[in-house]
Amino acid sequence: MVEGDVISTIAGHPFNQIQFTGERYPLAEVRLLAPMLPSKVIAIGRNYAEHAKELGNEVPEEPLIFMKPSTSVVGHGDAIAYPTSQSERVDFEGELAVVIGRLCREVPAERAKDVIFGYTCANDVTARDLQKKDVQFTRAKGFDTFCPIGPWIETDLDASDLALTTTVNGEIRQSGRTSQLINDIPALVAYVSAVMTLIPGDVILTGTPAGVGPMEIGDEVSVGIEGIGTLTNKVVSRD
Amino acid sequence: MVEGDVISTIAGHPFNQIQFTGERYPLAEVRLLAPMLPSKVIAIGRNYAEHAKELGNEVPEEPLIFMKPSTSVVGHGDAIAYPTSQSERVDFEGELAVVIGRLCREVPAERAKDVIFGYTCANDVTARDLQKKDVQFTRAKGFDTFCPIGPWIETDLDASDLALTTTVNGEIRQSGRTSQLINDIPALVAYVSAVMTLIPGDVILTGTPAGVGPMEIGDEVSVGIEGIGTLTNKVVSRD
Repeated sequence: MVEGDVISTIAGHPFNQIQFTGERYPLAEVRLLAPMLPSKVIAIGRNYAEHAKELGNEVPEEPLIFMKPSTSVVGHGDAIAYPTSQSERVDFEGELAVVIGRLCREVPAERAKDVIFGYTCANDVTARDLQKKDVQFTRAKGFDTFCPIGPWIETDLDASDLALTTTVNGEIRQSGRTSQLINDIPALVAYVSAVMTLIPGDVILTGTPAGVGPMEIGDEVSVGIEGIGTLTNKVVSRD
Repeated sequence: MVEGDVISTIAGHPFNQIQFTGERYPLAEVRLLAPMLPSKVIAIGRNYAEHAKELGNEVPEEPLIFMKPSTSVVGHGDAIAYPTSQSERVDFEGELAVVIGRLCREVPAERAKDVIFGYTCANDVTARDLQKKDVQFTRAKGFDTFCPIGPWIETDLDASDLALTTTVNGEIRQSGRTSQLINDIPALVAYVSAVMTLIPGDVILTGTPAGVGPMEIGDEVSVGIEGIGTLTNKVVSRD
């Protein structure tokens, strides 16, 4: 648990009653892992109108869902490994991530808040050339390290109108607000849970605003969300 | 472990040295669960030429990969729940499933056999109407119970030329051979593991032969593969 600049460690997972171990560390001295080990990451495509337009896509009638494998998840400060032998265009996509806290299915939108544990930042890293080639998104978005999530989970937050900013080497590239989501968070929880059971630690990525673009090896990419914090990762060559 | 008509229970998972508990039961008296809890199920589209043709698709240049969530996995004898309020056309797709036995990435095709634990039968259940509508396959193939796998894992088998038969209420609907795979099993392991790390228990579904078609509530669907056994599931209404 993070309070100010101090981390207090807890025993086990955070989804029920929290037990502190009594150990405390300065935040600056610890390496943060991804704040959950999701059984699945469900992501939403084209959920900001301006982003759908910039890639030449229509806004879909219903939420467009796809999956990223759990093996793509890394944490704050971890490297994004650019698969240079397989792709020539790897993009950042800053997103608000919803972390599920309860086993649930068929959750009505008005009860979505009961199953949400909290919120964090995510980068839905995408090999844009492979996404165009395959049509199915799985390969393009499924490489190891292509789902940085963190730095931690904010559990006490109204996420309906937060500023989201993505920077590359400190330059602002994406700047949106979660109030621009075409399908809002309760609608997404209802839609996804009507298809598949959600498990504590599962993550829903809510889509990316306009401004997506390429990352190069050596770049430092940050996704910052108001009220949560900033997720920063450096791009390295995998090969 | 199954030998003839007798099941011997083992302690823990089967991926390393097996420890028998000493308990034995007649096969006919036990309910078989899915033989693994996969962290991910990677499936291959259009990997038999005749099946690609029957749905009006070209054979892709490279393997077409997509994912089914772990929450869609059920075992032999479990019900397939037809989501009648969301789909009007749910199809069976009988497939050979490859079960991974070792943590691995970037496995060369010639070493694929070293990371394969065994083989089993699977039904890649698909809401065909939603697949057409969404383009992305995730929703159509991701409903709870849409990935029956079993009845067990056959660990001692040459899977390169096995007969695969799918029946609905005893009538043969699909009849293929794994020798017809466009991308063979070693090629699939190499291709998938070049993108994402595979974990013991992960499953690769190798694609379905021609003959896919709809299931109705009350139908009993069986996928039988030579040298493995038969996976049988009944279709019930979810709603």
